[in-house]
This record gives sequence, structure tokens and C-alpha cells, in this order.
Amino acid sequence: MTPLHVIILAAGQGSRMKSSLPKVLHCVAGKPMLHHVADTARTLGAAGIHGVIGHGADQVRAITPADDIQWALQEEQLGTGHAVAQALPNVPDDANVLVLYGDVPLTSAKTLERLIGQVGERSLALLTVTLEDPHGYGRIIRDQGDKVLAIVEQKDASEHQHRITEVNTGILAVPARLLKDWLPKLSNNNAQGEYYLTDIIAMAVTNGVAVNVAQPDNEFEVQGVNNRLQLAELERWYQRRQADRLMTEGATLADPARVDVRGNLQIGNDILIDVNVVFEGDVTLGNNVSIGPGCVIRNTVIGDGAVIEAHSLIDGAEVGNNAKIGPFARLRPGTRLAADTKIGNFVETKKAVVGEGSKINHLSYVGDATLGRHVNVGAGTITCNYDGVNKHQTVIGDEVFVGSNTSLVAPVTVDSNATIGAGSTITRPIEAGELAVARGRQRNVQNWQRPEKKA
Amino acid sequence: MTPLHVIILAAGQGSRMKSSLPKVLHCVAGKPMLHHVADTARTLGAAGIHGVIGHGADQVRAITPADDIQWALQEEQLGTGHAVAQALPNVPDDANVLVLYGDVPLTSAKTLERLIGQVGERSLALLTVTLEDPHGYGRIIRDQGDKVLAIVEQKDASEHQHRITEVNTGILAVPARLLKDWLPKLSNNNAQGEYYLTDIIAMAVTNGVAVNVAQPDNEFEVQGVNNRLQLAELERWYQRRQADRLMTEGATLADPARVDVRGNLQIGNDILIDVNVVFEGDVTLGNNVSIGPGCVIRNTVIGDGAVIEAHSLIDGAEVGNNAKIGPFARLRPGTRLAADTKIGNFVETKKAVVGEGSKINHLSYVGDATLGRHVNVGAGTITCNYDGVNKHQTVIGDEVFVGSNTSLVAPVTVDSNATIGAGSTITRPIEAGELAVARGRQRNVQNWQRPEKKA
Amino acid sequence: MTPLHVIILAAGQGSRMKSSLPKVLHCVAGKPMLHHVADTARTLGAAGIHGVIGHGADQVRAITPADDIQWALQEEQLGTGHAVAQALPNVPDDANVLVLYGDVPLTSAKTLERLIGQVGERSLALLTVTLEDPHGYGRIIRDQGDKVLAIVEQKDASEHQHRITEVNTGILAVPARLLKDWLPKLSNNNAQGEYYLTDIIAMAVTNGVAVNVAQPDNEFEVQGVNNRLQLAELERWYQRRQADRLMTEGATLADPARVDVRGNLQIGNDILIDVNVVFEGDVTLGNNVSIGPGCVIRNTVIGDGAVIEAHSLIDGAEVGNNAKIGPFARLRPGTRLAADTKIGNFVETKKAVVGEGSKINHLSYVGDATLGRHVNVGAGTITCNYDGVNKHQTVIGDEVFVGSNTSLVAPVTVDSNATIGAGSTITRPIEAGELAVARGRQRNVQNWQRPEKKA
Repeated sequence: MTPLHVIILAAGQGSRMKSSLPKVLHCVAGKPMLHHVADTARTLGAAGIHGVIGHGADQVRAITPADDIQWALQEEQLGTGHAVAQALPNVPDDANVLVLYGDVPLTSAKTLERLIGQVGERSLALLTVTLEDPHGYGRIIRDQGDKVLAIVEQKDASEHQHRITEVNTGILAVPARLLKDWLPKLSNNNAQGEYYLTDIIAMAVTNGVAVNVAQPDNEFEVQGVNNRLQLAELERWYQRRQADRLMTEGATLADPARVDVRGNLQIGNDILIDVNVVFEGDVTLGNNVSIGPGCVIRNTVIGDGAVIEAHSLIDGAEVGNNAKIGPFARLRPGTRLAADTKIGNFVETKKAVVGEGSKINHLSYVGDATLGRHVNVGAGTITCNYDGVNKHQTVIGDEVFVGSNTSLVAPVTVDSNATIGAGSTITRPIEAGELAVARGRQRNVQNWQRPEKKA
Repeated sequence: MTPLHVIILAAGQGSRMKSSLPKVLHCVAGKPMLHHVADTARTLGAAGIHGVIGHGADQVRAITPADDIQWALQEEQLGTGHAVAQALPNVPDDANVLVLYGDVPLTSAKTLERLIGQVGERSLALLTVTLEDPHGYGRIIRDQGDKVLAIVEQKDASEHQHRITEVNTGILAVPARLLKDWLPKLSNNNAQGEYYLTDIIAMAVTNGVAVNVAQPDNEFEVQGVNNRLQLAELERWYQRRQADRLMTEGATLADPARVDVRGNLQIGNDILIDVNVVFEGDVTLGNNVSIGPGCVIRNTVIGDGAVIEAHSLIDGAEVGNNAKIGPFARLRPGTRLAADTKIGNFVETKKAVVGEGSKINHLSYVGDATLGRHVNVGAGTITCNYDGVNKHQTVIGDEVFVGSNTSLVAPVTVDSNATIGAGSTITRPIEAGELAVARGRQRNVQNWQRPEKKA
Repeated sequence: MTPLHVIILAAGQGSRMKSSLPKVLHCVAGKPMLHHVADTARTLGAAGIHGVIGHGADQVRAITPADDIQWALQEEQLGTGHAVAQALPNVPDDANVLVLYGDVPLTSAKTLERLIGQVGERSLALLTVTLEDPHGYGRIIRDQGDKVLAIVEQKDASEHQHRITEVNTGILAVPARLLKDWLPKLSNNNAQGEYYLTDIIAMAVTNGVAVNVAQPDNEFEVQGVNNRLQLAELERWYQRRQADRLMTEGATLADPARVDVRGNLQIGNDILIDVNVVFEGDVTLGNNVSIGPGCVIRNTVIGDGAVIEAHSLIDGAEVGNNAKIGPFARLRPGTRLAADTKIGNFVETKKAVVGEGSKINHLSYVGDATLGRHVNVGAGTITCNYDGVNKHQTVIGDEVFVGSNTSLVAPVTVDSNATIGAGSTITRPIEAGELAVARGRQRNVQNWQRPEKKA
């Protein structure tokens, strides 16, 4: 098989983005546009991926630490033909070259496979799209046999040609050998003084190389991003596709227009996702998981039957089967909850391993801690894990009852079946079955004179 | 008047839902589709409601504990005609039969009343709808006098008939006597080998029974659900109608596309509902109530002039006039707040009766408690209502001042005008006017050597 | 230059609003419609602004405490011509009069400048709009030279005139001298018995006064509000324009349909705004600020590089550069956070001045307090600032370590480098470098008999 080399043009500044970030680093669904394109190239099984960079080249390289991308620097922005030429020396003669754009992030692999299927030794393949309003785009001129004859730019098009709605996307696949022949012959004798890749179409026609055509399933696949309104448009299209995918796989979404998936979301059967849930990174939901409104879930695995109530934030956690989380729970990285656990409202956990059936129901901070099974942590419990410089561990056994408003000054251990009285500050170990109390004795003072309102 | 019997077809599996739940149990606005249809039948004053069930029959019955529905089991899925036949023995001869579908949840009673108005001793009534794209549906063939002659299925339709945009919805009303005559004559001599209810239209025409027609006000009323994308479409249409209803009644909605009503919401005058509010179950809002963004309110009554601030969750509560709730408040079932109360941020209440003018403003858990009037509960107060096995009551009188970070170990009583010093753990009763303090004495240690950073 | 006097008609009741509030006081983007119109008049440099009020006149005046508006009372609602006549005595003869409507809130100054540009000594200027469905509106009748001849109301229009899509908006600009001549000549000899301002068009034509025309850029600019559905439509259009404006200025919005700006939002470069953020009042965001989902930010200044995480509520605060706020943070008025500060989850601040690099990471209430630099406030810390009648200050120096679950009973001072042990209730001053502990001694009781389940 002919090896495929993908050249991604990513040198533009994108001044209409009004950003200090190079345009191709702006994100769709939390991932830089350039990374979307590179991932698509990988999906296509590219033997080589070439990134042509210019504006903000160092930033682009820093934020794209892939070792399968070969960078080519385009020092001056002299047009798309010139850009491709910078990468071409790194492409073997016997390859096919697919030219993609770092600011056209959502072309599907399926569309591109169709395109690549059209390229041959004596044929190139052009991705075109039919637009309701083609104004501004290069029109595809075909002969009566539907063979592509030329691309005519807006300003050069005749009245008749203006009515053509099939336009050039700029995406094309072409044998490297032909490209290496043609690119040096490009001329910059035009208004912008640039070398246009598009001009190879005319060369192909002249040389009797067939110009085959493929089309995307949806025009958003070839929409480029020049400003943040277009970025938002693509974001919404991407998100709507995710929503449709989730529903097709068997998730019920309260509102497909109010869910955001920024990363990889794997779902089990019979998932319920309420409004305004955001998923980030790698998230896996088991069967029968239910997610309440306003939750944000990142890099987390949630077990079968777990219920995540409204406004819970979960990051870097494992949540066991049938756990009940929230509302207003905040699980931070390193939280590992066994089956049938409960984390309630206004509770924060961090590096907390919690055993089966244990409960932290209200207003607590549990960090750097290990809890056994069936522990009950009362409201207002704090693991005092930080002494100002070091973090320390709290270790709690099975069936421990931690009274409300307890402070556990780490490092400290509480053995199984121990009981801690409410309002205690625990600084020394508690052994199995013990009751620990650490609080002042209550004094009641009669006829207490309350403070008076000051002037 | 001729009694009305409604037969609801609810035997299908709905494999495209990709669910272990029978299709008709999937919810629109938090209520199973079948229940929507059954409720509509009740609104129509049906003398009998017959549910034809098959796939997941036990689940359907378990989740539909209505004693006014007579179930008929369709053991094999042999078509709509066969399904209706299972229920027909339970329908008296002198009734009219209305056939509805458990997966067509949102047909309005108004539309169906119009339909039923068209049925007579020698006429049946068919609900049709005009679709922009009728592809796939049975077309309504009429003669020059507009009389219905036949329903022609997509595959049998001529070029000319394909252009007909009036299609069959499957919903029809027909005298039981005619139905009992016709159903046994249905044939399954077709590609699917099924008995189609639709075939009675041809019988009617043959027998000189008039086929009258009614149409719904909106095509969503007759949209069926075969997958979760369609479910979401109906959910959104339903919700938009709720939003319109609320605005017509005099509520201001910040965004009609971002409010969800799953149940019965009764509103007073001059209500403000900010973005992303969700109502569930039976909720009543008094006059001049304002609800902030991100709130979820379930089975709750809220009094005049109450202000619910952002991200408050209220479930099973009564909120008095001019109460101020939230932001980030969590009222759980059994919360009863008198007028002019305040529940502030990061506060959870449960089975808590709070008297007029009392305040729990910050970071507290108040459960199984009764508070009098004008009580001030300081930040970080916890009612320690659970000893690991039993729940106990905290009873607080009028005008009590509870200092911050107080733990109230229930059962405990605090009489009126008592004061509790900050940081106290209260285990014994406090009498009227007393000050109670229960904390350690402060020791200051000079030249304290702080811990050092470990390697 | 001819002085401009703007007359705003604001006397209607708006019964379809179903409100006790006069219609013009209903808000778009948090601001009464009348105030939008008055602000536009100010933008136009009006020499006089005249509000014609009737229904709810006292409420309108009370909620509109502007001293640049001259009020005229229209005691009876006898039509637009009558309404304008109430204000006209206060308009000098040599002025131009612009007639606006308190329930048409979003006409742009740009459109109105265009309109005013069309008025002259012997010409008036009419704002018209072309509608897809002009039904119900007064059609603009022009002669073959495109000169306006008349406005014909729906009921009086011929078949041919019904097809005219250019309609009258009611907004017009006219020399005061002409208006003073014409208004007394208006007749109420019509079905409603009202004096219609529109009738001056016929007078102009009769008198040989030219009727010039301008059109708005968007039909929402001239949409009036008669019910809350229309109010919501305008709200959404307004918000979408704000979103577009923000994106054009260089903000990335996760979803332009899920951001609300109710007031003045000034932004730096490279702002990220996630879904469902609400801005109210005057908010300024520095460069590279990122705002998480579900935040509400009001009257606040946020410095460069600050990160506001999900579900944070900020009101009346200053947030320093590179501060990290939230998630679930609640900053109340008077919060002033220096650079590099951190306010974490379930933390409330109020009148709190926090020095550079200080952290309040978890479950705390800090109010009426001043904190120095690099203070670490442990989880569950409460400033007990309220004794039931008075508020008191807590003053904390630099580099102080406040242990978890500490109660600081104000007034109290903690000098620099002091350390407070976890679970302490601090009532006396702590001097520099001291350790303060105030808690009970821990007692461990062996073989503790736990409570038993009661029947």
C-alpha cells in the first residue's frame, strides 16, 4: 500500500482570534484544534505527520509534545503552496500526501478515507463541499462529463460561475511525486503575492492528471475557524454530535443542547444525564449511572448504579457501585470510594480511600486518609492533614463512629469499632473499641448578661 | 352518553432505546410515557382504561400501580390489530374505543376530544397529521369530496400518492361493536405476518362506515418515540410548552430554553425564574417569589416574597413568606421554615422546624430539630442527631444565640434566651437565659517551634 | 445644532404582562425597559428627556430616580398623540422631538442617529421596518417615486396593500414646531376614540412636509413587549448580541447561548467563559481570566490570570492577579483578595481583606477580617464576628497558621507567625510566634458500650 503522509498547515497567526495564542492552539471540546487534526491523521494510519508552523511556533511545539509529528518551519507566510513546500522534503517520493489545516479541526476520518480512496498514481483527490451560500469561495468548474476543469476564485468568476455552489475546501490528497513536480512551478504573480496550493489543480488538468472529488457528510467538517464566533459554532456542532452519539448508545439526556463532553466518555447501559453536565478527560460511567444537573466530572470511573446528585464536582476519582454522591460533593484526585459509600453535601475528599458502606454525609474535609468499611463520619469532621509544611495520614478502621465536628490531627490512627465523641480534637491514637472524647466540660452560667448594641 | 374505553398499546420492547426498561416506561418530564397517556385517558373521563402489555409486562405493572387500568397480556407481538384484540373482551359492546399508544405520550386531551367528537354509530374517527416530509408513513387517500377512501402504506404508494402529505397517526376512535365485528376478520397475509389495526379503515369503507378525521394542533402531539433522540425531542417540546405556559401566566423566565418542569408547578403572580432551574414533583410558588440560577426544587411550597438564591436545592420543604434561602442551601424533606427566616450558604436542614425570623446563615447542619423564633445559629453549628443507631431531637427556644462551631449533642434542649459560647459541645440542657460554654481554656506557648519540611 | 428632545411614552399598563409592575419597569438584562430607552436617549445627547407616565406613575418614578428626566402625567390613556401632547409643553419650539416607547427597549442609538439625520425644518423622519409577516401593522404606502404617502392600518388596507411588508414602528423624529402645530388638530373620531400620533403623517403629506424614512439593522430593535414571551425573546436577542460582542473582543465562550450579561462586562484578552455563567452589574475581567461553569459574578473586578472554578458566586469583590477561587466559593461584598490568594470550596468571605499568597481552602467563614500575607487558614475555620448585636473584627498577621476547626472569637488579633492548634476556640490575643491551643484533653475510654437501636 502507498504510505500516507499528512501535512498539517498550522503556521497562521489568526489575528481575528484576538489572542496571544496561535490560532491552531485554540480548543474545541477542550483540545487544541491542531490536536484534533493530528488525531485524525493518526486514525488514518499516517506513516508520517508533518506540522508546518510559523507564528507562535515555539508555543505550538510546547503544547504539542507528540513525537510522531515532524515539524517544518515556515518562516514567512508566503501562501499555502509555500507552506506545503516546507514539509515536502521530509515526505518520501512514493507516498501520497494529504493536506489538512490546523484551523479546520473536525474533518472526519471517514470523509478523508473516502478522499484518499480517490487518489492514484495519475490522479489527485479534492475535497469539495456544496454550500447554500458559496460567496467568497473558489467554485468548482466541471465539464459536461462532470470532470473537474478548474477552480475559479470569487473575484474571477463569471456571473454564471457565481451560481455554482460546489466549492473548494482546500483539503486534497495527491501523490508526493506529482506534488514535488508541481510545487516549484507555482507562481506568486497575484494580488497577495502568495503561492497558492490550489493552483496545482490547473497543473493537474494541464498534465492530464485526473482531479477526483469527494465530499464530506456535513459542511461543518470543512469549516475553518477565523474568529471565536466560528470557534463557538464548531464547538456546538461537535457537542451536539457527542450528544447524539450518547443517545444512540442508550443514554437519556435531559437536554442534548446542555451537555458538554470534552474528552472521552464511555458509557454503560441506561445512563441518565441531567441538564448542564460537563465531562472532561477520560470518564467511564457504568450501567444505570445517574448524573444530576450541574455536575462536572473529569478523569473518573463511576461504577454501576451510582447516583451522582446535583452540583457535584468529581475529578480523578473512582466511585464504586451504588455509591451515592452529592449533592454539592467535591471529590478531588486520589479519591477511591468502594461500593455503597455515601459522600454528602459540602464534603470534600482528596487522596481518600473509603471502604464499603462508609458514609461522609455532611460538611467535612477528608484528605490523605484511609477509612475502613461502614465508618460513619459525622458532620463537620476535618482531617487536619497539613501542619503548614507536611501532609500526614489519617487511618481509620472498620465500623468507626466519628462524632460531629471532630478534628483528626494527622498523623493519627483510629482502630476498628472505635467511637469519637462530638466536638473532639483527636491527637492521639484510638484503639479498637475505645471511646475517645476531647473537649471542654460544659458550664452553664445563670442570668447571663448579653452584649448590648453599640452606638 | 356512550362510555369511552381507552386501549393503550404498551407491549413493544423498543430495542432501539437500547435499554433494559420497556420503552413505555421511559420518561418525559420525569414521568413514564405510559403514565402520560393514562393521565390523558383519565382527563377524557374514560370509563375504562386498558393497557396491553407484553415485553417487560411485570416491570410495566410494577411501575404503574394504578387500580383504574385493566391489563391485557399480549404474549406474542403479532401486530396492532392483535394487540387491540387482547383488550377488547373487557370492553362493553356499547362503548366507543379510543386506541392510544404508550410510546406516543403527548397527544393532548383537546385533540382527542375533537377526535372522539367525530365517532358515531356508523362512523369511526381517525387522527391524521400533515407532515412536511411524509416519507415512510401511511398516506390518507381521499376522494374528490374529501372523503377518506383508504390508507396506503409507503411501499404500496404510487408516485402520485407519495406526494400526499396527510398521514395516518394510528390513533383512532371507533364503536366497540364495529371493532368486535372487524378485528376477527383481519388478515396477517403480509410481509411482516402481522395483524394491522389500520386495515379496519378498508373494512369501514367497504361497509359504508364513514371515516371521519381530526388533526392535532401540533405534530409533536402524535410523534412516537423509538429511540432516545426522539425522546429528547419530545422532552424539549414538552418543556418549551411548560415555559410558554408559565410566561403566559405571568412568570418572567430568564431563558425559556433553560427551565425544566417535571411535575406540577403552580405559580403566583410576578414570579422570577432565572436560568437552569429544575422543578420536580408538586411545587407551589407564592406571589413575588424569585428563584436564582441553578436551583432544583422538588415537592415544596414556597411563600410570598421568598427569595431563593443561586444553586439552592430544596426538597420536601415548606418555605415561609419572605424567607431568604441560599445560595448553596440544601433543604431536605421535613424542613419547615416560618416567615422571615434565613438559611444561608452551605447549610443543610432536614426535619427542621424553624420559627419566624430565625437565621442559620453559614456552614451548618440542622436536622431533627425545632427552633423557636429569632434564633441565631452561628456558622459551623452541627446538630449531632445520630449516635450511630438512633436519631435524637434538638429543641431550641426563642431568641437563642448559638455561637459558631457549636455541636449540639441530641437529645438536648436549649431554652429561650439562652446563649451558647462559640466552639462549645453542648451535651446537657441549657435553661432560659443561661450562658453555656464547653470548650478548653486557651494556652499560648511562646517561641513555638514550627514543624519542618520533611525531605 | 438643533437640540434634541426625546419623549418616551411609558404610561401603559401592559395587562398582558399579568403583573402588578407597570410594563415599562419589566427588565431586559436586569434593567427596566424604560431605563434602556432613557440610556439610549442619553447616548444620543438629548437636551431633554420627557417621560410620559400614567399607570403606576409613582412606581415608575420611584424606580427611575434620574434627575435628567422630566415627567409628564397622562391621567387618561387617550392614545399616543394625546400622550405626546402631555410632554410637549416642556419642549422648546426650536427642538427636534424623537418619540420613543418605554416598551420598545432595544432600539440602537445608531439606528436612531440615522433616523434623526433624516429630520429637517420641513421634514419628519419615520422609522419603518420590513417584516416577513406584516399582519396587524400599519403599512407604509409610497408613491412611484418611493415617497411616503400614508400609513394604512391593517383593517383599512386593500388586498394589494396587505401585501406591503414595510410597516410603521411608531418611532419618529419631527420638529417640535410642526408637532405643536399638528397635535391639537388630531381627531379621536375612530373606533377606539383615541388620538393617534400616526395621523400626523397624513398632515405632513397634506402640508407638503417630507416624510423621510430610516430602518433599523434588525427587527428586534423595534420589537415591542406586550407579554412575557416577547420579553423573553428580547432578552435572548440581547444576550446573544452580548455573547457575539464578547467573542468578537476575544473571549472564548463555551456556549454563546448559555451566558448572561446583565450590566457592563469589560474584558481583557484571552478570557475563557464556560457554560452558564451569569454576570451582573459592573464586572471587569483582566487578561487570561478563566471562569468555570455555573458561576455568578456581580460588581467585581478580577485580576489577570485569575481562575474562577465551577459554581463560584462572587459579589462586590476584588480578586487579585492569579488568584484561584472555588469551586463552590462564595465571595460577598467587601472581599478584597490580593494576588496569588486561594479561596477554596465551601468557603464564604465577607468584608475580608486577604493578603498576598494567603489561602482559605476549605469549609470556612471569614468575615469582618483582615489577613496578612501567606496565612494558611485550616478547614472549618470560623471568624465569630457577631455576638448577637454587634460585629467585631479579626486581625491576623503574616505567615500565621490557623489550625482546622478553629473558632476566632472577635474582636481578636493574631500576630505574625503565630500558630493555632486545630479545634481551638481563640478568645484572647496571640502574639507573634506563639502557639495557641484551646481545646479539651483527649480521654480514651476502653470497652465503650455503644448505644443500642431503640425499638
